[in-house]
Amino acid sequence: MEKDISQAVIRRMPRYYRYLGDLLDAGVERISSSDLSKKMHVTASQIRQDLNNFGGFGQQGYGYNVQYLYDEIGKILGLNESHNMIVIGVGNLGQAVTNYVKFDKLGFKIIGLFDTNPEKKGMDVRGIKVQMMDELPDFLRKNKVDIAALTLPRANAETTARELVELGITSIWNFAHVDLDDVDGIVVENVHLSDSLMRLSYNALNSNKIK
Amino acid sequence: MEKDISQAVIRRMPRYYRYLGDLLDAGVERISSSDLSKKMHVTASQIRQDLNNFGGFGQQGYGYNVQYLYDEIGKILGLNESHNMIVIGVGNLGQAVTNYVKFDKLGFKIIGLFDTNPEKKGMDVRGIKVQMMDELPDFLRKNKVDIAALTLPRANAETTARELVELGITSIWNFAHVDLDDVDGIVVENVHLSDSLMRLSYNALNSNKIK
Repeated sequence: MEKDISQAVIRRMPRYYRYLGDLLDAGVERISSSDLSKKMHVTASQIRQDLNNFGGFGQQGYGYNVQYLYDEIGKILGLNESHNMIVIGVGNLGQAVTNYVKFDKLGFKIIGLFDTNPEKKGMDVRGIKVQMMDELPDFLRKNKVDIAALTLPRANAETTARELVELGITSIWNFAHVDLDDVDGIVVENVHLSDSLMRLSYNALNSNKIK
Repeated sequence: MEKDISQAVIRRMPRYYRYLGDLLDAGVERISSSDLSKKMHVTASQIRQDLNNFGGFGQQGYGYNVQYLYDEIGKILGLNESHNMIVIGVGNLGQAVTNYVKFDKLGFKIIGLFDTNPEKKGMDVRGIKVQMMDELPDFLRKNKVDIAALTLPRANAETTARELVELGITSIWNFAHVDLDDVDGIVVENVHLSDSLMRLSYNALNSNKIK
C-alpha cells in the first residue's frame, strides 16, 4: 500500500513528527485535528488525508493520541530502528553533519568518516577517525552501513555513488550539487543548498511582504 | 503575474538553472525541449508548462537558446544582482555555510558573522571576523544586508528571527529545526536536515530497489 504514496505526503510526514514531538515535550496527551491544523498552518482535511494514506490513527470525537501518533509516524519513517551512516567527504559540511547531535537522537548513528585527502587521514571528528576511501571496502565487510552521506565536490559525486552501489550501499544522502539520476539502483535524497538559496531569493523578490 | 506561480514550479527553477549551466559549460548553444527533458528526467510538457509561467522562451522548431534561457531564469531567481548575507550562529554548520564558495559565485556574498558566544568573538572564518549579536544593529546601519542565514539552535531561532525583522531583515534562510510560521513579515526558506534524513529513511524502507 505504502508504495503509492506521493512524495508530497512523504515530504510532510517528518514535519508532523516534529510537531508531535513538540507537543509531547509540552505534555500534551491528545489533540484534535483542528488544533493540530492551526498549530501547523495546514488544513485539518489535509492532515486527515495525509494520515489516511497510512490507515488513519484518529478517532471521531477524540482527535489524536499524541504519543501513539508520534510513535506510528516514527515507525512509518523507520525511526523505530537505528541506522548506521557513513560520511564521505570530511570538509566543513561533512564535519557539520558529523557533529549534528540531532541525527544521533533520531537513531542515525555516524560510524565512519571517509575522504580521499591523505592529509585528513586519522583526523578526529567527534571521536571518529577519518579513513581513506580505499579502506571503505574493508570497513563494510566489518560493519553494517545503511546510509552514506555524500558531502564532497560535485565532480566526484556520481563516481562515488556508483562505487557505493557496487559495495552494497544504496541509500544516499546527497549534498553534492548534482542530481544522481543516472546512477542505477540508488535511493537518493538531495540537499541542494544553492537551490534552496535561489528559492529564497525568488520568494523575497516576489513577496508582497517586502517593499 | 509572477505572484501566482506555485511553489512547486519555483522548486524546479533552480534545477533548470543548474542543468542549463552544465550545458553552457559543455559548450551547448541550443537544446530542444525533448532533449532537455531526457537530460532532466522530467517530461517535455512539464518543462514547457513551467517556463510558460514566465512567458515561454522557447521557439517552435528551434528549441531553447541555452545562454538566453540561463540568463532569463537567473533574472527570475534574482541572480542578476548580488545579495549581501550574514550568518547567525557560527558553529560547524555556520562555518560550513560561510566556507561554501558556490554561494559567492551565485552572487550571495557573506559579509558578516554573528554569534552570542563570547569565546567566538574575533574568530576568523574565510577572512570574516565573528562579531557578537549586540554589534548587529550597528553593523546594519553601515551595511546593506539582504538575507540572514540562521544556523543556530532551534531554541533561539524564533526570537532571533523577530529581532531581525525589527532590524529590517526579512529574508531568512533557516537551518534551525523549527518552522518560523509565527514570525510575521518574513520570507523564510527552511533547510531542515533531519526532515530530509527521515524522508531518505522512508524511501529506502519503501523502495522496490532495495531488498
